[in-house]
Amino acid sequence: MNLMQQIKTEPGHFYAVGVGPGTADLVTFRAGGLIHSADVILAPRSRIADKSLALEAAKVFLGKDQEIIEKVYAMNRNESETNDFWETVAGEISAWVKAGKSVVQITIGDPLLYSTSHYLLESLSGRLLPESIHVIPGISAFQAVGARFRESLTIQQGRLMVMPATDLEQVEQALDHCETLVLYKAGRLINQLVDLLERRNLIDCAHIACYAEQPGREFMSTDLREAKDGKYGYMATVIIHIRRQKWGDSV
Amino acid sequence: MNLMQQIKTEPGHFYAVGVGPGTADLVTFRAGGLIHSADVILAPRSRIADKSLALEAAKVFLGKDQEIIEKVYAMNRNESETNDFWETVAGEISAWVKAGKSVVQITIGDPLLYSTSHYLLESLSGRLLPESIHVIPGISAFQAVGARFRESLTIQQGRLMVMPATDLEQVEQALDHCETLVLYKAGRLINQLVDLLERRNLIDCAHIACYAEQPGREFMSTDLREAKDGKYGYMATVIIHIRRQKWGDSV
Repeated sequence: MNLMQQIKTEPGHFYAVGVGPGTADLVTFRAGGLIHSADVILAPRSRIADKSLALEAAKVFLGKDQEIIEKVYAMNRNESETNDFWETVAGEISAWVKAGKSVVQITIGDPLLYSTSHYLLESLSGRLLPESIHVIPGISAFQAVGARFRESLTIQQGRLMVMPATDLEQVEQALDHCETLVLYKAGRLINQLVDLLERRNLIDCAHIACYAEQPGREFMSTDLREAKDGKYGYMATVIIHIRRQKWGDSV
Repeated sequence: MNLMQQIKTEPGHFYAVGVGPGTADLVTFRAGGLIHSADVILAPRSRIADKSLALEAAKVFLGKDQEIIEKVYAMNRNESETNDFWETVAGEISAWVKAGKSVVQITIGDPLLYSTSHYLLESLSGRLLPESIHVIPGISAFQAVGARFRESLTIQQGRLMVMPATDLEQVEQALDHCETLVLYKAGRLINQLVDLLERRNLIDCAHIACYAEQPGREFMSTDLREAKDGKYGYMATVIIHIRRQKWGDSV
């Protein structure tokens, strides 16, 4: 099986590569091959983490003589600071690419779902030709969590909604407009979320997990109440099976 | 790199394995290792297809002396026929598993997103111990399509909705309740969808693709009007970037 060896970066190209939830075996062969053959690897890391989660997941794929750059990303959500940060990074990346190097940015999950790749792709779009920019999808946290619970996320005419749990009113609205609701970053509002789901009689339809598929860190529960008072941390993912479709329903 | 060789099925276990959009290099190492080491491979195939798409994507991973079973799945959406079909399949599978064989069901995309794995997992849950049933996530079509267009699907507080385009009224409702809308099976309603998006001034925010990442079959366009009259086929995926969030918006 030399599928991974067949996949190589091209000189003068940039790749935003998703490495999935955090374990090497949920990386795709394409991602593995690109990481292995890149000249430069860019690994964003949050200010609070002591190492890059993406780099941990990708380390078995690293090649020889690679430039590995960890960038500490400010998560403070200030527009101009964020833009300045990514403009600077994009400047460095495009200099590498224009010098004929291949550059891979690795990120946890999927680069198009709540990812820092967004900012880099935006900043690079004015600097590089579109055909030299590539995005490689990865397994997102909600897929990993769903798989651990072994329950379908959506079937037939079902609507799946994915959103961060930052605004409780919006979460309540969402309950009326989909069959399955996935909430990211559910830790901060967890007590209010438990109250809401108890009031709506949905508490038994909700599951919670944190760090799914991250070796040694994962925890999960079918009882959201166990996660009260932030016990499961800020990054928890909640899946709510709101209503089960019947045959022939157009919802 | 022998990561794939390190992953093996266990005797007496069942695995619902997603193989992604249809190209071998978007399969994960875990999926590849399980497919390679399974005693029995089950590949559902629709009645209209002359071969199993999942089996095509997985064929480079096949091992030696494997029992490969293609099941033609009736897509006619009759409840009792469907249940009977999957009950029969589940009976066969659980007989293999109870005889100590390892069985892998491969499906295109992710086994928990609009997948036939749902029915098999349901039917198996009464026959096998939960700990002998496993689900391995895969890259879903919307992720592959998004990656080909290189545009973020969702950032910050954004809500992502995924649904089949079977009911136009429901599609119109969805436009008001998320920032990004993904429509599966958009071919059948495509003319009405173009009208709706023109009326809502969203036609330039919509992309369409079909068979993304399926070698030789893929086509994609940033102009939905090109897909009118079913030119892109029934299975088309449409991505609508409804509104772009600004900093500090709580949507």
